[in-house]
Amino acid sequence: SKRYSITLLPGDGIGPEVISVAKNVLILAGSLEGIEFNFQEMPMGGSALDLVGVPLPDETLLAAKKSDAVLLGAIGGYKWDKNEKHLKPETGLLQLREGLEVFANLRPATVLPQLVDASTLKKEVAEGVDVMVVRELTGGIYFGKPRGFGTNEDGEEIGFNTEVYATYEAVDHDIWVDRIARVAFETARKRHGKLCSVDKANVLEASMFWRKRVIAVAAEYPDVELSHMYVDNAAMQLVRNPKQFDTIVTNNIFGDILSDEASMITGSIGMLPSASLGSSGSGLFEPIHGSAPDIANQDKANPLATVLSAAMLLKYGLGEENAAKRIENAVLDTLDKGFRTGDIYSAGNKLVGCKEMGEEVLKSV
Amino acid sequence: SKRYSITLLPGDGIGPEVISVAKNVLILAGSLEGIEFNFQEMPMGGSALDLVGVPLPDETLLAAKKSDAVLLGAIGGYKWDKNEKHLKPETGLLQLREGLEVFANLRPATVLPQLVDASTLKKEVAEGVDVMVVRELTGGIYFGKPRGFGTNEDGEEIGFNTEVYATYEAVDHDIWVDRIARVAFETARKRHGKLCSVDKANVLEASMFWRKRVIAVAAEYPDVELSHMYVDNAAMQLVRNPKQFDTIVTNNIFGDILSDEASMITGSIGMLPSASLGSSGSGLFEPIHGSAPDIANQDKANPLATVLSAAMLLKYGLGEENAAKRIENAVLDTLDKGFRTGDIYSAGNKLVGCKEMGEEVLKSV
Ligand SMILES: CC(C)[C@H](C(=O)O)[C@@H](O)C(=O)O
Ligand SMILES: CC(C)[C@H](C(=O)O)[C@@H](O)C(=O)O
Repeated sequence: SKRYSITLLPGDGIGPEVISVAKNVLILAGSLEGIEFNFQEMPMGGSALDLVGVPLPDETLLAAKKSDAVLLGAIGGYKWDKNEKHLKPETGLLQLREGLEVFANLRPATVLPQLVDASTLKKEVAEGVDVMVVRELTGGIYFGKPRGFGTNEDGEEIGFNTEVYATYEAVDHDIWVDRIARVAFETARKRHGKLCSVDKANVLEASMFWRKRVIAVAAEYPDVELSHMYVDNAAMQLVRNPKQFDTIVTNNIFGDILSDEASMITGSIGMLPSASLGSSGSGLFEPIHGSAPDIANQDKANPLATVLSAAMLLKYGLGEENAAKRIENAVLDTLDKGFRTGDIYSAGNKLVGCKEMGEEVLKSV
Repeated sequence: SKRYSITLLPGDGIGPEVISVAKNVLILAGSLEGIEFNFQEMPMGGSALDLVGVPLPDETLLAAKKSDAVLLGAIGGYKWDKNEKHLKPETGLLQLREGLEVFANLRPATVLPQLVDASTLKKEVAEGVDVMVVRELTGGIYFGKPRGFGTNEDGEEIGFNTEVYATYEAVDHDIWVDRIARVAFETARKRHGKLCSVDKANVLEASMFWRKRVIAVAAEYPDVELSHMYVDNAAMQLVRNPKQFDTIVTNNIFGDILSDEASMITGSIGMLPSASLGSSGSGLFEPIHGSAPDIANQDKANPLATVLSAAMLLKYGLGEENAAKRIENAVLDTLDKGFRTGDIYSAGNKLVGCKEMGEEVLKSV
């Protein structure tokens, strides 16, 4: 039987609760497909800060790198909100992405028929939405240099960042377009063959460069239909008619904004997983929701986003499509049976807690 | 009687049609309040490119600066889309904003009761939405230096931009937070006293600096309730529950994205005006919609966004509140009577063209 090592990073808030459910689901789905896992739990985020004073301990990064895949719960909380930048839970997450070199963040936003009413959009606008946002994750203004604080020529205080993208030739730094474009074209090819690249090329040189490289890479994918859209228009079109999109590719900061907007269009961010992939090495899988400190340790969290992240881990991280399908189907079955956590509850369904939702999913795996 | 000089910049596409309507409305509303106007029409955008080879001729900027206020139709079109950056209509618009030093862009997104069905959001989510986005317009990554193309230390090609914000002490450059924060606090004070500052202070130094200055300025406005939100969350919250917002203040690029998203939430971007104001000198007023080349010269455009921009011109540009109110009320009356251009048409109403809509508004001024 096959054996994989998985690093679990429960993190903060509801993180440990949802990771515990996803772990059990992984074990069962794996065993039914002849797969075994070695799990290693490591501290990360606010809980690592409390434990050892940094948001991403060296041991955690090392374990993550050595394993076949990483499953993260959630990080952050009020307690650490006022920390200096290098002591913020979020900084640990950015260091983890950088350390694992997971430059491609895949964020599906799908409106499930069972949950179409959860969307704030009208039913006819929301139903059938199925967008995949491919976000560049280790470059752009998040990592660009120079950055910092200082004074300008007029002696005024300033804060500044650099939005920068390069072609991909060298391997020793983290800003480039071509490789993320390739992941996006491959992704679109496996979906409906339509890729929309989002930029602000009417204003920003970094975007003009982005667009030029995306067009150059497009020559390798004649079967994929490429279009371009300005980011302000994309923010509108996601509200006006999200069904027009198949796959979207964009830079780190625009992807941060648009993928969250797309998630909210589905109305059920407690359901949405994500995958962050590199060229090789272990991928990072996490729900898109936050650590929800307000409902932590109350058995109220929706574990399905993390369960579906475990499915993405199997599919994109390990190539175990069958085990992944088992989990996806189990989630749909459980919804069909009417089980709902509070965040997606509507009249006529059965309200359950985090643990019970996990048990119901296990029954259908 | 009072006399003001107004520079009209019809621009491209439907620009001339909507400006012509707004001009007539201004003349009538003015005359009823003892106000006269000198209008001067100047070329700008694509039509200026065709005429004299630049998107913002010196004469146009000079006229705009010398007048009491500027009313712009719309710029851009397929014809000039592939132009180099300095020959794009959009570049003319950025030069105009910079030249007039209109650093504060006010963009209301209001769901009118008559048009609540136009929103793609459910009625209970959309009705009553009334958000004002205050966008910094002459700084940040739009204007930050260094910018351009080049090679990095690994010899790779790059494109780059700088996101930078400073405090406001010197007057000879255009990147600062304090003055836009003041405009936002003043605006919130005249509305419902709530200001939400949107940034990405968990990642970007430019945003940390922004937040620090907004908090410093807040001391002058103890009566305004200030909150902070990350831009990705703001993009979600606008979809989830737009009614939670009163006034939003944010940087140039985030404002570009969020104000367009907020506009689309209303479902009727053909209705939405904007004002761009400096510390002194003439303000720039324009509809938020584009030049819509597909329907240009077909008498199909909705002139109401430009008519409402003329109302903002009277109110914010000239301090003529009574004349402004006349126009706003005339627009509401016209909608109450059921007149609709194609973009906001729904069954049971009267479909009219651009000119007829203008005539109907004139009847109610
Ligand atoms: C927590 C934060 C640093 C992070 C980001 O901006 O990338 C988050 O918003 C996300 O999208 O994963
Ligand atoms: C046309 C473009 C340069 C402009 C901008 O990005 O500011 C537009 O999108 C706007 O919001 O007025």
